[in-house]
Amino acid sequence: DSALKVFSLNSNPELAKEIAENIGTELGKCTVTSFSDGEIQINIDESIRGCDVYVVQSTCAPVNQHIMELLIMIDALKRASARSINIVMPYYGYARQDRKARAREPITAKLIANLLETAGASRVIMLDLHAPQIQGFFDMPIDHLVGVPILSDYFKSKNFDDVVIVSPDHGGVTRARKMADRLKAPIAIIDKRRPKPNVAEVMNIVGNVEGKTAIMIDDIIDTAGTITLAANALVENGAKNVYACCTHPVLSGPALERIENSKIKELVVTNTIPLGEEKTIDNITQLSVAPLISEAIIRVHERQSVSILFD
Amino acid sequence: DSALKVFSLNSNPELAKEIAENIGTELGKCTVTSFSDGEIQINIDESIRGCDVYVVQSTCAPVNQHIMELLIMIDALKRASARSINIVMPYYGYARQDRKARAREPITAKLIANLLETAGASRVIMLDLHAPQIQGFFDMPIDHLVGVPILSDYFKSKNFDDVVIVSPDHGGVTRARKMADRLKAPIAIIDKRRPKPNVAEVMNIVGNVEGKTAIMIDDIIDTAGTITLAANALVENGAKNVYACCTHPVLSGPALERIENSKIKELVVTNTIPLGEEKTIDNITQLSVAPLISEAIIRVHERQSVSILFD
Ligand SMILES: Nc1ncnc2c1ncn2[C@@H]1O[C@H](COP(=O)(O)O)[C@@H](O)[C@H]1O
Ligand SMILES: Nc1ncnc2c1ncn2[C@@H]1O[C@H](COP(=O)(O)O)[C@@H](O)[C@H]1O
Repeated sequence: DSALKVFSLNSNPELAKEIAENIGTELGKCTVTSFSDGEIQINIDESIRGCDVYVVQSTCAPVNQHIMELLIMIDALKRASARSINIVMPYYGYARQDRKARAREPITAKLIANLLETAGASRVIMLDLHAPQIQGFFDMPIDHLVGVPILSDYFKSKNFDDVVIVSPDHGGVTRARKMADRLKAPIAIIDKRRPKPNVAEVMNIVGNVEGKTAIMIDDIIDTAGTITLAANALVENGAKNVYACCTHPVLSGPALERIENSKIKELVVTNTIPLGEEKTIDNITQLSVAPLISEAIIRVHERQSVSILFD
Repeated sequence: DSALKVFSLNSNPELAKEIAENIGTELGKCTVTSFSDGEIQINIDESIRGCDVYVVQSTCAPVNQHIMELLIMIDALKRASARSINIVMPYYGYARQDRKARAREPITAKLIANLLETAGASRVIMLDLHAPQIQGFFDMPIDHLVGVPILSDYFKSKNFDDVVIVSPDHGGVTRARKMADRLKAPIAIIDKRRPKPNVAEVMNIVGNVEGKTAIMIDDIIDTAGTITLAANALVENGAKNVYACCTHPVLSGPALERIENSKIKELVVTNTIPLGEEKTIDNITQLSVAPLISEAIIRVHERQSVSILFD
């Protein structure tokens, strides 16, 4: 069988290292730097001829830099005669631009899929796509892993006695239901609506949170506006404690300040996007997706079904 | 006939405005900004259904940002039913990564061509490609304009009486020859070589520069190392005055400091890459390629030959 090699680009070096260790290999040798004018320079420093290559790269911020790094790396691997080029993309940037919500908008999530194919990718392994329909943007095999089990296991180990799982919006109810099943808990939904134009939104809660430990779950937390306002609404409605969790901690702009000053006791995230030093505050816990991804890579490489990791 | 629309992205707003004015139209309305997490957001604010659209964008620094802006804009234009999407790319970034100089290198100049096609470009108008072979990387029509006439006319108007045109390296002799023809001047070549490994390069001059006004011409000046050392060599060999010119003023890293402290009396460049405030020093003159590009756009749109602009 052909050799498996794992390469890291610049988005998630720690995660990539952990994945390589779990698989029992070393990270492939490559140098990803920039020329003086900012153009990306990639040198692959070992032969990969005939190998099945796995490239770990999230397209988190700086998103355009990370996308170009990935595309250029794929080009280099293809020209260096890799047998297959498997992209491990824990976080898929531009996923929210997945439809024309207004006239003359791009559908950048589809564009990125096309760019990856054009560059020469053979497969993409992803986690919690913002919309599962994005799988259909690709004409190559996709393995779509989910973070709910990792997040659920963490909260299970806390042994809270009266839990309710809360979806912060209508779009996330299916995810909340999955977590609730794992924790044997009921669900509630934040029902945000604007009573009249130009009037502040109100947050109603559908379901009972009174006296309970509320755990909100979302796929992405970006500026943290919704989730911190939802935390207030939960407390106002009698929740005893409020926790929040998500797979992808984008945490841009005012996010950290909002979370630090919020009613959220603890925010639990995964490392699909690294937090970096400037993003670690006391009440954030980060769980690793490395075991999940390593298992997926091994199964893909050994031609075993990956579907048991989907849920 | 169908309507012509010119759109500007963020690399060259001034040049794009000048082009639109020359053509006698207004710039198309669009908003190119970023979401809080750095993802590019593009809104095209007027209908372009059935139009021939020209998008002005150099892929200069920040190169990866500018490439992604362009690709996303092409995607939006395509989905908004543009009849043709013509890319006006005064400077083609990544042009120097046009071959595998070492094992396992990418050929990013080819990758970019593929990405533009995948996004949906119909044609690219470019200026002074680092290697003319890059035209062959595209499977769509390319119009390849040259900056030599603009640069030559500027120096002609100076009426120097004893001029020699100097190529700063072996690769640029053809370009120097073209300029020399226009100025009815002889040429000289900087013949850089390393006598032994780990010994400093020496710069010999092939041709006579003694007592003459030397004008060096190159396509790109990036860190300005070669050109400023060449200026020293020209002075040491008796040149009376030293000028330098190029089409694309990349001017990264130590370039400005080197030029300011060099023997170069004046550096003449075009605006395929804007200099910006931090890049204007006394001895740099910038000439506009807007008349050349406007003429090319009009000719393309009216189905006239563009070849008279090639030389
Ligand atoms: N990076 C981003 N940050 C914030 N909003 C975005 C981003 N990308 C796309 N959007 C917008 O988010 C909306 C889709 O989000 P959603 O309704 O949660 O699927 C679309 O209207 C997009 O215009
Ligand atoms: N942005 C860049 N800055 C400096 N050198 C580069 C850049 N892009 C590519 N190169 C290198 O420049 C060489 C090609 O330049 P040239 O010989 O002038 O065509 C190749 O060996 C590339 O590795």
